[in-house]
Amino acid sequence: MSFEEMWAALAAVGRDPDTGAYRRGGWTPSERAATDWFTDQCTTRGLTLESDGIGNLIAWWYPHGEPAPRPTPRAGLVPPDVAGSSATANGEPAGGPAYRPGIVTGSHLDSVIDGGAFDGPLGVVSALAAVDRLRAEGFTPSVPIGVGVFVEEEGSRFGMPCLGSRVAAGVLPAEKALGLTDRAGVSLAVALEAAGIDPAGVGPSPLLQRMGTFVELHVEQGRGLTAPVGVASSIWPHGRYRFTFGGEANHAGTTLMEDRHDPMLTYAMTALAANKQARLTGARATFGRLSVEPNGTNAVPSQVIAWLDARAADQTTLESLLAAITKQATERAERDGTTLDVVPESVSPVVDFPAGLRDRLVDVLNGAPVLPTGAGHDAGVFSAAGIPTAMLFVRNPTGVSHSPAEHAEMDDCLAGVDALADVLKDLAK
Amino acid sequence: MSFEEMWAALAAVGRDPDTGAYRRGGWTPSERAATDWFTDQCTTRGLTLESDGIGNLIAWWYPHGEPAPRPTPRAGLVPPDVAGSSATANGEPAGGPAYRPGIVTGSHLDSVIDGGAFDGPLGVVSALAAVDRLRAEGFTPSVPIGVGVFVEEEGSRFGMPCLGSRVAAGVLPAEKALGLTDRAGVSLAVALEAAGIDPAGVGPSPLLQRMGTFVELHVEQGRGLTAPVGVASSIWPHGRYRFTFGGEANHAGTTLMEDRHDPMLTYAMTALAANKQARLTGARATFGRLSVEPNGTNAVPSQVIAWLDARAADQTTLESLLAAITKQATERAERDGTTLDVVPESVSPVVDFPAGLRDRLVDVLNGAPVLPTGAGHDAGVFSAAGIPTAMLFVRNPTGVSHSPAEHAEMDDCLAGVDALADVLKDLAK
Repeated sequence: MSFEEMWAALAAVGRDPDTGAYRRGGWTPSERAATDWFTDQCTTRGLTLESDGIGNLIAWWYPHGEPAPRPTPRAGLVPPDVAGSSATANGEPAGGPAYRPGIVTGSHLDSVIDGGAFDGPLGVVSALAAVDRLRAEGFTPSVPIGVGVFVEEEGSRFGMPCLGSRVAAGVLPAEKALGLTDRAGVSLAVALEAAGIDPAGVGPSPLLQRMGTFVELHVEQGRGLTAPVGVASSIWPHGRYRFTFGGEANHAGTTLMEDRHDPMLTYAMTALAANKQARLTGARATFGRLSVEPNGTNAVPSQVIAWLDARAADQTTLESLLAAITKQATERAERDGTTLDVVPESVSPVVDFPAGLRDRLVDVLNGAPVLPTGAGHDAGVFSAAGIPTAMLFVRNPTGVSHSPAEHAEMDDCLAGVDALADVLKDLAK
Repeated sequence: MSFEEMWAALAAVGRDPDTGAYRRGGWTPSERAATDWFTDQCTTRGLTLESDGIGNLIAWWYPHGEPAPRPTPRAGLVPPDVAGSSATANGEPAGGPAYRPGIVTGSHLDSVIDGGAFDGPLGVVSALAAVDRLRAEGFTPSVPIGVGVFVEEEGSRFGMPCLGSRVAAGVLPAEKALGLTDRAGVSLAVALEAAGIDPAGVGPSPLLQRMGTFVELHVEQGRGLTAPVGVASSIWPHGRYRFTFGGEANHAGTTLMEDRHDPMLTYAMTALAANKQARLTGARATFGRLSVEPNGTNAVPSQVIAWLDARAADQTTLESLLAAITKQATERAERDGTTLDVVPESVSPVVDFPAGLRDRLVDVLNGAPVLPTGAGHDAGVFSAAGIPTAMLFVRNPTGVSHSPAEHAEMDDCLAGVDALADVLKDLAK
């Protein structure tokens, strides 16, 4: 199946027929359908599928057959046979060849609410297509090549971006992850059970022991890339902060403006201040999510909760951006007689991808441009966890992302597949 | 049963045990439970209960027995026997006395989302208590006295304030009312069927033919009343306007601030402008309800819908307030590259209650203070429909309303019952 055919098939899964948008939150039916599509593709190719306790997947291409007799696949972790071991985890003797840790490429299949087709799936489909090209060329890699899919990268359901990779890397404890709830109040533990996954298996992932190198291909999400394909230098430090503005519910018609303690006003001023501060510092600040109580037309709100997404080129700028926004919000709250509480929900420090690996990719790609990104990725989590990691970006002509209007030209996507195949070939030679 | 006992019993119906708040949207279980409590009270007192097609209720005290043999009660309208007629609507001969149109008092039992105990129920319980006092005194009214309960006054479920009275008075056509939907997308027609009410009966209400005068007692909703009881002069003109701000969904991390078309910013500036304009003109402007799409933390919103509640002492001020807010919003939208669409959802002109009836109440109450209100009421709808109408207000010490903190002192509530009884006695002497 060609890239174009795979792309068309996956793009149809869960797409809203009216808006063209996706709502593939983690472990939702449309995200599960996309994952089923992926596992079918792996089965068809004879790849060996392994999953960990939270549902991250790696489909391995073992160039000399599987490393050992395998226990019956189950929803939890299938313990891999690591290089040099003589027995599988269930005590059976190892029969296959020993392998060094492999090269994993891939991305994610979940989406933001009303997201587009490219963010995530492009990296997964390109990975399958790159494997197909290497096999068609008769290339035999020196180490296994894996195609990975990591769950809930966007955090659109449980509010924690890179949920699957953070749990796998051990930076998010299982008990904290399992207690996260979605907007309907469903905990991750309950959602996993509903998806047929035993929550008891959630924790640091043995899958990562086999991941010698990770390369994620992703659609670029701004307009910074003018060539078809580029290489990432770094991921900006970024965070999500929950601003809770508290006031006093009251009648919208009878309460004098002077008598009000209206948290909506404090919020509104804070949203404008965040925008101004981000412009002044070349950073990004966005209030894209709100929750208003009681949210009635004829009542002054009692509470407005607003989530700030803030990102900057360096940690100092990010911290001073947050401080400036919080200061202005606090001053306005005093004036409005409202309260303010700021809680960081997730904060990720800067990720500088290792220069040696990055330069190797640039060489393979004949001097492809190097650029940073303001978007978080599982690649950032794996890099911070000490796994040698690199990223490839495919040009986005409008820069639009996290929207059904997100787009990349097919020629650029095919150039991305070729670039990824070339990189894998070089790393696994 | 004393006022205090009735008050305690009704206050317990549907109250959130944690917050003390009510969510009695029209035809919801808790609003139906409050209505059942009311009909039980009417049955106990031997009052004759009549309902119309949308579920408005009047419980009649016929001082000389019912006016005619009555057909079997049903959910739809029970056609009243009007004065001078010799037969009931179903053709049976009329056996009871003929009556002139009566005096109706009462209010509503629905609430805003997370509302308080007083707004609505105080008028209903006070009406029952006033009837009890008149009967205990052996007073025989010259015309029937009715206790009315009108549905969905707050509009908290279907977005249309005074829904029941507007339909009853014929100012809201049945087909428009039945097509209104709640936030879950349930139409009024479907909600009525679920409540056992045939939507085919919705329309102008014959109940109003028997309503010679309407007197609504209500908790005051600001701090304008310093005596225990006051009399209304007018209801400010007011309206609900839906502001739809359209932009472009995009990635919160990668999209340059300069490249965004963020409707949240246009909204935020509009909310601050509305507050400022209302202060400048002594009016009220509130954005208490919002709907954000896609409402994701890491996406610039594609759309923000915000509902403006605006009120002013006169029509000219209201219109110039709306024009000023719309002008500032439009200018900001141009700057943000966003779009703005403003749709009036309900607009009510000023209601000046008839001076003769108002002065009569003031006389009966020994010179009680007269004040206007910024709150809409069914009394305003009935007055605009040509029914002689008056309102009594009971003091609100904090001015807080549409909130679980809404409160009136028991002594003031009892003074309200006495005032209402005195007024009924005078009007029905």
